Amino acid sequence: MKLPEGFLAGATRAGIKPSGNPDLAVLLGQVPLDWAFVATKNRAAAPCVLRGRQLFAAGGRLRVLVVNAGNANAGTGERGVADDLRMAELAAERFGVAPEEVLTASTGVIGVPLPVEKIAAALPLIQPGPLAEPFAEAILTTDTRVKMAEATLPGGARVVGVAKGAGMIHPNMATMFAFLFTDAVVPAEELRRGWPGVVARTFNQISVDGDTSTNDMAAIFASGLKGRVGLEVFWEAVYAVARDLAREIAADGEGATKLIEARVIHAASEEDARRAARAIVASLLVKTALHGNDPNWGRVLAAVGYSGAAFDPLRVRIEIEDIPMYDGAPLPFDREAARRALDKLEVRILVDLRTGEFEAEAWGPDLSPEYVRFNAEYTT
Amino acid sequence: MKLPEGFLAGATRAGIKPSGNPDLAVLLGQVPLDWAFVATKNRAAAPCVLRGRQLFAAGGRLRVLVVNAGNANAGTGERGVADDLRMAELAAERFGVAPEEVLTASTGVIGVPLPVEKIAAALPLIQPGPLAEPFAEAILTTDTRVKMAEATLPGGARVVGVAKGAGMIHPNMATMFAFLFTDAVVPAEELRRGWPGVVARTFNQISVDGDTSTNDMAAIFASGLKGRVGLEVFWEAVYAVARDLAREIAADGEGATKLIEARVIHAASEEDARRAARAIVASLLVKTALHGNDPNWGRVLAAVGYSGAAFDPLRVRIEIEDIPMYDGAPLPFDREAARRALDKLEVRILVDLRTGEFEAEAWGPDLSPEYVRFNAEYTT
Repeated sequence: MKLPEGFLAGATRAGIKPSGNPDLAVLLGQVPLDWAFVATKNRAAAPCVLRGRQLFAAGGRLRVLVVNAGNANAGTGERGVADDLRMAELAAERFGVAPEEVLTASTGVIGVPLPVEKIAAALPLIQPGPLAEPFAEAILTTDTRVKMAEATLPGGARVVGVAKGAGMIHPNMATMFAFLFTDAVVPAEELRRGWPGVVARTFNQISVDGDTSTNDMAAIFASGLKGRVGLEVFWEAVYAVARDLAREIAADGEGATKLIEARVIHAASEEDARRAARAIVASLLVKTALHGNDPNWGRVLAAVGYSGAAFDPLRVRIEIEDIPMYDGAPLPFDREAARRALDKLEVRILVDLRTGEFEAEAWGPDLSPEYVRFNAEYTT
Repeated sequence: MKLPEGFLAGATRAGIKPSGNPDLAVLLGQVPLDWAFVATKNRAAAPCVLRGRQLFAAGGRLRVLVVNAGNANAGTGERGVADDLRMAELAAERFGVAPEEVLTASTGVIGVPLPVEKIAAALPLIQPGPLAEPFAEAILTTDTRVKMAEATLPGGARVVGVAKGAGMIHPNMATMFAFLFTDAVVPAEELRRGWPGVVARTFNQISVDGDTSTNDMAAIFASGLKGRVGLEVFWEAVYAVARDLAREIAADGEGATKLIEARVIHAASEEDARRAARAIVASLLVKTALHGNDPNWGRVLAAVGYSGAAFDPLRVRIEIEDIPMYDGAPLPFDREAARRALDKLEVRILVDLRTGEFEAEAWGPDLSPEYVRFNAEYTT
């Protein structure tokens, strides 16, 4: 997938991942990039998150995004802070920019010192080019596939996104990176204003296992090299790319066999709609039921019940895969037909709260015995 | 286990559980009972919870607690409300008391009408006696064992508790019943004042799978037939019984192979200590790591990080089974020795936040592939 104008990307093997796969990626702005940034609220946030927040607050433009996978540089104490800064300095040196124009991002095991010398040795090997694939591949950890999405705006400007996910994905940014790149002309202030709202409706609405990681971030970068665009059209395109990536992350959760999409309508507030949808896809009982193709609307009702969203259980309506199952009271339906309807790669749940005018979506994978096996054996 | 003075209990087979095991239990007060009550915050709460709340608000004493297992009478619409009232009326008739002196409790599948006619037919078969066992056995659902605990106060008054748990156990009362009985003389107002604090430190500090159910309740009943006791001694005994039951519930979570006990000390507030401890035992990544005997302190740090509790990751200290693993930075330790130390039925995690003066405990089971298999095949 070609990057928008003004962006180059590249990657190499630094030897951080035990697999020997590419694990060091760079995104280069051929011009200074406006950007916006949302990161994990975890209090044990990694040095790259703390540094990113400081850079963003300082308000300067960026030239380089450098990402390593295989080592999160989290829980590494004071040494981790120094190592993260060193990684920024090395990338700045390699590409002839200032360290404060470099955003760092690390993902992988927690509590192991970052092998900065490997990064120093590998950076000169990276030769950035116009395609997103090398970057998208190198940032993966336990993901089973590359995650990319794109949209083209009237006039030819584009939005391209890459992401990584897998375990620990949850509202408030879990082990997840999402980076969007655009060559549309967008005022820097507008980028900062609109980005958190997109993240709230997309990346913060996915849940793999309820854990929120120490490292995750979602950022958007703009080169401004293509023509102006209407802001409404621009944000629609950004939302579409972010939603695609969020769905890809959820569908590729550890051990996932299917994607669950929950849509909650007629909620009393947008926050109510979001929390109800999130509660459904985060519920272990819903996840395990759908893993077994069990049309268990009772677990959906219970999840919405403890989500905090306002509703009357005697008025709510629940459909799974368009089969009405509850409408203030249980509805009769063909259980065997419902089981067959759930036996697919994507299962949609609709909950009509009949309380207000707001709606939201959320996404998560089912929960399989493989998830447990995987996480009992993998030291993060 | 003998019940305190003034209490009788009995149970029978009503044919609600498909297994044919006892599923209808009654607790009888030989005198009117003072009581205190805490129930699920789930908005889709079952009729028994709503009715219990009303009775408790009305302030009257109770004579009968009637419990059925196998059917939660939740998600059953208006019909469920009428069925619950009918169950209270039937028990009142059987024992010669008023319906508003009867507390009902139901647990089991959601969304299936309560078979009230089976309850009507079975109630006359119950012959209450002085032992807690028949009651404790009949209220079980997916539990693998009976849960009882007791304490004796100076002067001979006693506190006896019975509970059920298994899946869906989580802070804020998940599919869980806990009933405590005492013959100590305690002012009714004191009972109401102190009970929520005990529940907050015990039953609300356990987490099996993060789902909060529609039916759960914790109640304490006092006959006042034995001598007066010091209030401090009384609440200590109640806390000890409640803590024992909470640990038994956590240890018997679906598919559990071990009990995880998290203790958080030196937190900035009691709420901070509780939420940090809960986050640890609720974390799927911690649960799966300990299932695999993986000394993964990084996941503990990450869980405390997103719990919302205030702390500085560069000052926090983490021990698992008394092995120091992190103290502002990773500590060296023998991984193989640690694996062996974790290979037991109960694993203790200690987190010293070094921020304030408060502490709390929380309990949960590990997460096994069996949990997933069980919940993918069981329609609740």
